[in-house]
Amino acid sequence: MSTEYLIPLLKQNKSKIVLLILDGLGGLPIKARGPTSLEAAQTPTMDRLASEGSLGQIVPIRPGVTPGSGPAHLALFGYDPLDHLVGRGALEAIGVGLDVHAGDVAARGNFCTLDDDGKISDRRAGRISSEDAFPLVERLKEIQLKGVEVDVRHLREYRFAIVMRGKDLSSDIADTDPQQTGLSPLAPKARNKASEKAAQLFDEWIQKAQDLLAEQEQANGVTLRGFGSDPELPHYQDRYGLKAACVAVYPMYRGVSKLVGMEVVDFEGERPGDEIAAVTRIWNEYDFIFIHVKKTDSMGEDGNFEGKKEIIESVDKALPALLDLEPDVLIITGDHSTPARMRSHSWHPVPLLLWAPERGMPDLQRKFGERDCVLGGLGTFPASDIMSLGLAHAGRLKKFGA
Amino acid sequence: MSTEYLIPLLKQNKSKIVLLILDGLGGLPIKARGPTSLEAAQTPTMDRLASEGSLGQIVPIRPGVTPGSGPAHLALFGYDPLDHLVGRGALEAIGVGLDVHAGDVAARGNFCTLDDDGKISDRRAGRISSEDAFPLVERLKEIQLKGVEVDVRHLREYRFAIVMRGKDLSSDIADTDPQQTGLSPLAPKARNKASEKAAQLFDEWIQKAQDLLAEQEQANGVTLRGFGSDPELPHYQDRYGLKAACVAVYPMYRGVSKLVGMEVVDFEGERPGDEIAAVTRIWNEYDFIFIHVKKTDSMGEDGNFEGKKEIIESVDKALPALLDLEPDVLIITGDHSTPARMRSHSWHPVPLLLWAPERGMPDLQRKFGERDCVLGGLGTFPASDIMSLGLAHAGRLKKFGA
Repeated sequence: MSTEYLIPLLKQNKSKIVLLILDGLGGLPIKARGPTSLEAAQTPTMDRLASEGSLGQIVPIRPGVTPGSGPAHLALFGYDPLDHLVGRGALEAIGVGLDVHAGDVAARGNFCTLDDDGKISDRRAGRISSEDAFPLVERLKEIQLKGVEVDVRHLREYRFAIVMRGKDLSSDIADTDPQQTGLSPLAPKARNKASEKAAQLFDEWIQKAQDLLAEQEQANGVTLRGFGSDPELPHYQDRYGLKAACVAVYPMYRGVSKLVGMEVVDFEGERPGDEIAAVTRIWNEYDFIFIHVKKTDSMGEDGNFEGKKEIIESVDKALPALLDLEPDVLIITGDHSTPARMRSHSWHPVPLLLWAPERGMPDLQRKFGERDCVLGGLGTFPASDIMSLGLAHAGRLKKFGA
Repeated sequence: MSTEYLIPLLKQNKSKIVLLILDGLGGLPIKARGPTSLEAAQTPTMDRLASEGSLGQIVPIRPGVTPGSGPAHLALFGYDPLDHLVGRGALEAIGVGLDVHAGDVAARGNFCTLDDDGKISDRRAGRISSEDAFPLVERLKEIQLKGVEVDVRHLREYRFAIVMRGKDLSSDIADTDPQQTGLSPLAPKARNKASEKAAQLFDEWIQKAQDLLAEQEQANGVTLRGFGSDPELPHYQDRYGLKAACVAVYPMYRGVSKLVGMEVVDFEGERPGDEIAAVTRIWNEYDFIFIHVKKTDSMGEDGNFEGKKEIIESVDKALPALLDLEPDVLIITGDHSTPARMRSHSWHPVPLLLWAPERGMPDLQRKFGERDCVLGGLGTFPASDIMSLGLAHAGRLKKFGA
């Protein structure tokens, strides 16, 4: 459900809303009766906020649907991901600083290793270092194609982003990574007529890239995936009347924030404390701040139950500095669940804590955890309703009708 | 979400459904750990019904959206207020007995005081009494406009309702009340082409009204607001197969009930006991009875936490007489929250009690209160689902599919 109905209700005030996302926050217990990572974590500050505020759980996309990071964040930002498909390539390209406009086509690229028969022997080119990959990406920038501009930027290690700009391009193109070794990379295949021109141009680009890389031992091939463009989503300022900032380390999250009109903040360091220090620095300039903590998800993906617990504890330790800023509304939740037991994203509802001392309704719960959130006063609701709840608790919505 | 899907499922029986609305029922505690007005109230009968029945909480419009009374009641009646915008003027005009049909334009009017420069010095004309205002409204009835009929009716004190009937009228017109003193009343401004004719006619009417009132000391001006018409909503009989009655004191609620085809019952008195006495009198004639108690909301708007508690207690005391009638389904809830702490409507979910001795699923809750309702068996759900739950618990819905 779109949040467009909020537009006529918006009003301005000086309130501050913080959305703190612990990526993949939701989890499962290792044993049926045991705690989740969040439940096992010592989180005195979150527990205090829980007992003063309201808990609930959010459904990221639809019940049973496991979200990717892009759609999960679109939902948190109030855009139904079923209505707004955005290729992850576009998100990463934008996040790393490439310009991607409507009509451009962006993708993520991997260096890979091809054997003498052109089959992939390593999908990540031996995970070559950023140091080794960077000059290769510089060489790829030399590739010229007729009638279009192409820009390439190194991401991390064996990964890069690419964007193509020109007339009559469209991004409905299938991934070229066959997802297993022993097979040749696929040719970029258009999924509809409108995308055929772009698919052919990407095919040419890949050929030229592989010619340039032919001498490389490890990184002698490339695959592309996550083709996408700028879906021209409504911006936060227009949809919510909020001047919004993004404090995130990873390009994907910086990218999806830019797509909705947030300003992406640069800062040093990668720990939760570094992010909150960045928030402190920019506090007076924004109405809404999105903070993204990645490592809860990474630990979940690694099957590291304890590690995930420790990341959550490190966020809890950093929270008092955020509370010192006196936000009017603080929402702490995740974009989806990543149970260590599953080593992957999952569809399970995500615990949510809403703290708004002036306008919140404290429920009976005293602790921030999955099963406490089940009993919370906000109930179980779609992630895309978070923004309207945040605005309401900040006093930023007028009455609907008389 | 529309309840149209219910139509093929309807079946008839002799059951009686009562929807008892305590306006603005939901509240907030004064202190975080304290009770709300409802939780603080001594409500032995409601608590008995709670322990025999099911609790839940309803979201009036959408999470975070604070409803006006009109849209909040449309939602209770099963019509999504985002799809059915009805100007409050139409609701009050209908409620006070004026005929408003599709294509007519109705509005609410206020007498106001204008100074020598035509600026508003009192938006409510010194809150003149009904006694003083009534003859002025009688004089306004004399105003004639070319090509249209106009009818005016006194509401209370400084307020009246007006309806205009004629060809090519439309109601998308902005309020003329500038909402502050020291400014002139605004001219009625059409928000679209179709409403221009009506806007101009209302402008003429206001000029003529002010000529007639020029000699008055206090009530020498008028403002109009809440322009609207009959949105031709599906009637209760057609949508739910129910012969429905409305027992309410205030015109707004009588108006919105008429719009959905309820018959509005006249009765003496204003207290909950008077309303239940009226219900007793008409009991055999209707399948569905909507009872509206206003003063919970008024007390909330006045910031009177104790007063709200006492109104709830007075309703509880009147309930045994209602239960003596042996309704098959009794639903007790509010149209929205009106926390005394906020002195205004709010978006917080509203506690709901559903008692249906024959078909209900008793949950574990024993007391009717906001935080008990969070844990109730019905969960947190949209207000517009109340009618289908009521019909189901009354045995009035067939199986969907085979």
